[in-house]
Amino acid sequence: MNNIDNLCITNLRMLSIDQIAKANSGHPGIALGAAPILFSLFQNHISISKKNTSWINRDRFVLSAGHGSSLLYANSHLLSLGLSNEDLQNFRSLNSKTPGHPEYNLEHGIEATTGPLGQGLAMAVGMAIAEEHLSAVFNREDFNIIDHYTYVLVGDGCLQEGISEEALSLAGHLGLKKLIILHDSNDIQLDGKVSLTSSVDLKKRIESLNISYYYVEDGNDTTQINKAIKKAKKGNKPSFIEIKTKIGEGSLVEGTNKIHGNPPTKEDLEHIRKYYNWDYAPFTVLDEVEKEYKRIVKAGNKECFNWTKMFSLYSSKYPEQASKFVSYSKKIDVDLNLVSSLLPEKADATRNSFGIVLDKLSDIYPNIIGGSADLTASTKAKGRDGDFSITNRLGRNINFGVREHAMGAITNGITLHGGLVAFCAGFFVFSDYLKPAIRLAAMMNIPSLFIFSHDSIAVGEDGPTHEPIEQLTALRSIPNLCVFRPADAKETFYSLKVALASRNNPSVIVTTRQNVPYLKQTNYNDFLDGGYLLTEGDGEYLIITSGSETATCLQVVSKTKLKGDVFVLPSISLLEKSNVSEKIYSYPNLIIGVEMGDATHLYKFADIVLDINTFGRSGKYQDVIASFRFDADSLVEDINEILDTLE
Amino acid sequence: MNNIDNLCITNLRMLSIDQIAKANSGHPGIALGAAPILFSLFQNHISISKKNTSWINRDRFVLSAGHGSSLLYANSHLLSLGLSNEDLQNFRSLNSKTPGHPEYNLEHGIEATTGPLGQGLAMAVGMAIAEEHLSAVFNREDFNIIDHYTYVLVGDGCLQEGISEEALSLAGHLGLKKLIILHDSNDIQLDGKVSLTSSVDLKKRIESLNISYYYVEDGNDTTQINKAIKKAKKGNKPSFIEIKTKIGEGSLVEGTNKIHGNPPTKEDLEHIRKYYNWDYAPFTVLDEVEKEYKRIVKAGNKECFNWTKMFSLYSSKYPEQASKFVSYSKKIDVDLNLVSSLLPEKADATRNSFGIVLDKLSDIYPNIIGGSADLTASTKAKGRDGDFSITNRLGRNINFGVREHAMGAITNGITLHGGLVAFCAGFFVFSDYLKPAIRLAAMMNIPSLFIFSHDSIAVGEDGPTHEPIEQLTALRSIPNLCVFRPADAKETFYSLKVALASRNNPSVIVTTRQNVPYLKQTNYNDFLDGGYLLTEGDGEYLIITSGSETATCLQVVSKTKLKGDVFVLPSISLLEKSNVSEKIYSYPNLIIGVEMGDATHLYKFADIVLDINTFGRSGKYQDVIASFRFDADSLVEDINEILDTLE
Repeated sequence: MNNIDNLCITNLRMLSIDQIAKANSGHPGIALGAAPILFSLFQNHISISKKNTSWINRDRFVLSAGHGSSLLYANSHLLSLGLSNEDLQNFRSLNSKTPGHPEYNLEHGIEATTGPLGQGLAMAVGMAIAEEHLSAVFNREDFNIIDHYTYVLVGDGCLQEGISEEALSLAGHLGLKKLIILHDSNDIQLDGKVSLTSSVDLKKRIESLNISYYYVEDGNDTTQINKAIKKAKKGNKPSFIEIKTKIGEGSLVEGTNKIHGNPPTKEDLEHIRKYYNWDYAPFTVLDEVEKEYKRIVKAGNKECFNWTKMFSLYSSKYPEQASKFVSYSKKIDVDLNLVSSLLPEKADATRNSFGIVLDKLSDIYPNIIGGSADLTASTKAKGRDGDFSITNRLGRNINFGVREHAMGAITNGITLHGGLVAFCAGFFVFSDYLKPAIRLAAMMNIPSLFIFSHDSIAVGEDGPTHEPIEQLTALRSIPNLCVFRPADAKETFYSLKVALASRNNPSVIVTTRQNVPYLKQTNYNDFLDGGYLLTEGDGEYLIITSGSETATCLQVVSKTKLKGDVFVLPSISLLEKSNVSEKIYSYPNLIIGVEMGDATHLYKFADIVLDINTFGRSGKYQDVIASFRFDADSLVEDINEILDTLE
Repeated sequence: MNNIDNLCITNLRMLSIDQIAKANSGHPGIALGAAPILFSLFQNHISISKKNTSWINRDRFVLSAGHGSSLLYANSHLLSLGLSNEDLQNFRSLNSKTPGHPEYNLEHGIEATTGPLGQGLAMAVGMAIAEEHLSAVFNREDFNIIDHYTYVLVGDGCLQEGISEEALSLAGHLGLKKLIILHDSNDIQLDGKVSLTSSVDLKKRIESLNISYYYVEDGNDTTQINKAIKKAKKGNKPSFIEIKTKIGEGSLVEGTNKIHGNPPTKEDLEHIRKYYNWDYAPFTVLDEVEKEYKRIVKAGNKECFNWTKMFSLYSSKYPEQASKFVSYSKKIDVDLNLVSSLLPEKADATRNSFGIVLDKLSDIYPNIIGGSADLTASTKAKGRDGDFSITNRLGRNINFGVREHAMGAITNGITLHGGLVAFCAGFFVFSDYLKPAIRLAAMMNIPSLFIFSHDSIAVGEDGPTHEPIEQLTALRSIPNLCVFRPADAKETFYSLKVALASRNNPSVIVTTRQNVPYLKQTNYNDFLDGGYLLTEGDGEYLIITSGSETATCLQVVSKTKLKGDVFVLPSISLLEKSNVSEKIYSYPNLIIGVEMGDATHLYKFADIVLDINTFGRSGKYQDVIASFRFDADSLVEDINEILDTLE
């Protein structure tokens, strides 16, 4: 390693440590250990442009081990990516640009919010899928419009998480050759040595997944690191590079878990500075280092400039392709008129209505891509143009396999990549399995689309393990997530229309397994308020409901001893943003909430809630519904009883 | 294979198919394919006793691929385990003993509720851990009081789930030599061929995890199956036996996904019956088969009888050990007086108070076992007697590693095994990762104990990825789960006392990272109601709150323009079972809910809720709290404003 590289790495290490020391909080272990990896990558491999941080063909880098944030911030600072020296000094303080874990922000070179271990790896898999697909769609001879690598730095913790196996095995299966995983292999985790809890033969594990494995013995040897990355770039499989590092190298407690997540003591800080021959003031950036990083920045800017030139030639030669390329980044504005041509006025399961609409929209919008967790036959959520595979990069159906957690994160990765609209699907009860990924999408303000069919106890025969009860409440409580539970075919269409138009939030659409009637009353303008009246409004009480229960409630209100009204609530998220919610709050008469599952959120609006607070039951779905008293007759009885007590 | 074995297997297959055909619902694929595996196991390897189905030393069998329920029920019927022929005929109908997926019921030979793929495998790992530990504690020369195998049947789907990697890698690390995994390897999953979504070299994968791999080429060859199981039983590692089967063998659509989850057509039913030369009426059990199964039952009963004899000798020779053994199955009744001796009257984080109490109780009760997901240093939840490992089977601390999902399911497995009280711990925000396992514990009515520290935005510097917002709502909405969010040291103690006394429900205890004051007012008798008044009750409004906010609210109510009262709510689950909830519902004055996170459940009781519906922030925890206006001064201001509007 030449001297300037050495200086840069030391400066990176020191800037990281200075942040942690000043904040008196953070994770010095990875910062000291993995700095040479990060530097090698950005010095020699990663093309990004300071001038256009959202350049679509930039190389992607995800710090899956998000607790190494101080290192990422130091690097972004040196790359002049919007983080000032002062920002570093405000590390982990309120409202700073340098929070505890990296938060998605391209201006700062942060490709994804990370911290929950393993999810960054799965998001990187999603980015690599997007790259393969887009390059297949748009590249022409001599015009590699999309041609970049996706790098991800993982720690030992990331690899213990189940999501890592899901993501890696899919990456290997799909032959994502431009995915390069760098493993900061320091044999230490929070509680002690990795060997306390793992005996995995990593090389064997990785190779079993159809991923190339490389080994770098000395994590300070940038020559070896670069060599391994170069080899990896040439391979025809995803690559995994295990790089042996020493956690907290230079600390008094280097090589132990004591340096993983605790700021160094004063004594240790001195020791570290001595170890690296660093006697500058905190937050110093050496001139030589600044110069070298400027060179790196310039090279990146030039790559982007060249790409822009290439794209302009491409536009002349392939004008149609070029305009298609531009259209991929545009907001999808679904034609409202499609609803009547696609969806006949007949009873159908909303999962079927959803499938019909998705299929048509996938035809109209060629950038819609996604798939199900081994459940396309059940969810009806399938991408177009065949299966995305090694031999068919144009395929827009992703067979995620029974890998829900990675599926969610991969969907986020595709979304983060840009250019594509990504969805994924499964059974509603298993939304639990990807809740962590949905949460991250909401936190990143990205429009990933999650589809869940089999939305209630009406799943029927499969019984309680497969019948969602508390899932709606769980998802409704995630901030910045728009949850839709459509009542009929039209509302299903509207849900998808609104979801696809979203830019700053993910959406969940929950559909039924069983048929529900076509409701003449549902309509788009009211739908946009999140909730609206389906009846005349002259009743003496009001039912608030959603989904399949809506049609039942419409029968119920005309049969009860007092006439009632029905207010359908396709999306509480939308309702709470509209002024209609105020009307509900101030409704003078009795409000009864009705949902076939835990409906705690309805207590915000309703006086009485009829919901389900036990697990489901196995049986014919009509029997199960009746046993929970959600058939029309039972509801009439129960509501009459409620009305009696009011008299 | 001799003729009688053949007949038994055919009868198993036919009984399964008859159930599915009658119900017109179910999964024939695995039933037809895996019947020989199940038969081999129960004929030659599994010791259970019809006379004592909860015999502690029985072999365990978990059907991780729970959709094969019809096969399991057929087998239990033949074993006379409480399922009549009529029960089989009621397969998947409401209130039957034969629901869509197996539901934990020892009388019917069902060791665990399964269906969500992969969880059965992880529960089996827990059972194997329990076996190793209990045998180390109790066995003496010539007295193998605990000495049984744990078998689990997995499908391809189970192995795709991330939880399988977490569970298998821990099983391999811990050298659980009496765990035998049988893989119904039929290369088909719901959406089609496994090869659509996976290219894993399974042998390599399994061996990389320190697990012995065996292969049986023909899933109908019971000789080979038995041979492999025999070998596996002798090994010194966990064993994985890949058994090649044909999904839906004998069906017109055998070997395809069409037979995975759809009942056979009438034509196919005839074809299947022909294929197996079966021309008996539906639900027929042949006399020879009945006889063979009677033999199997008798052998099992005898094993149990012999064990009882052995245990009585053991009791004479090792009376202390024997009475300790008996005590392991008794309910834990924690001495209330311990609270004052253990917990000084000073401010402390409830995670610390929890750690102190758990440590002491683990000393008193040697059957408490558990650990953290690489977070003992943070959660303070650590088992006694060193780490459970290959060389220390007496260790009661399990280093779960960063494997939250499997951790939850393994904890369930230990609990299901019996004899031990199992806990596990992690950060509250990552409770999402094991929610599916918590749900299953609640569904099985078993008392697993889940501990989550770092309970709110007061996590501080680690920022939004690490700050729970919606987790409390998510867990509070799971049926049959008791959620505790203690306000101080004493309430923490009470939470653990109640949780450990639970027999039919799991518990979650959520603790703080930051210090909270010691509250003289908290007390056990009131705590048991789930919520109680901490102030005089003469105020003009009421705050409902929990956890760390309690102490703040106690300050607030004396500073607002009108005097208020504080009602602390350590457990909504308990509250809703007590009559105190009625008092709250009928409280005449204003009720304000206060919780630093999504507090949707408080809308059940409160008129106004002050909670958090956005993600958290990174910063010193005091700054973060103040930024969300949950410091005392902000709350006084905001509540005064509310009181103003009421005047």
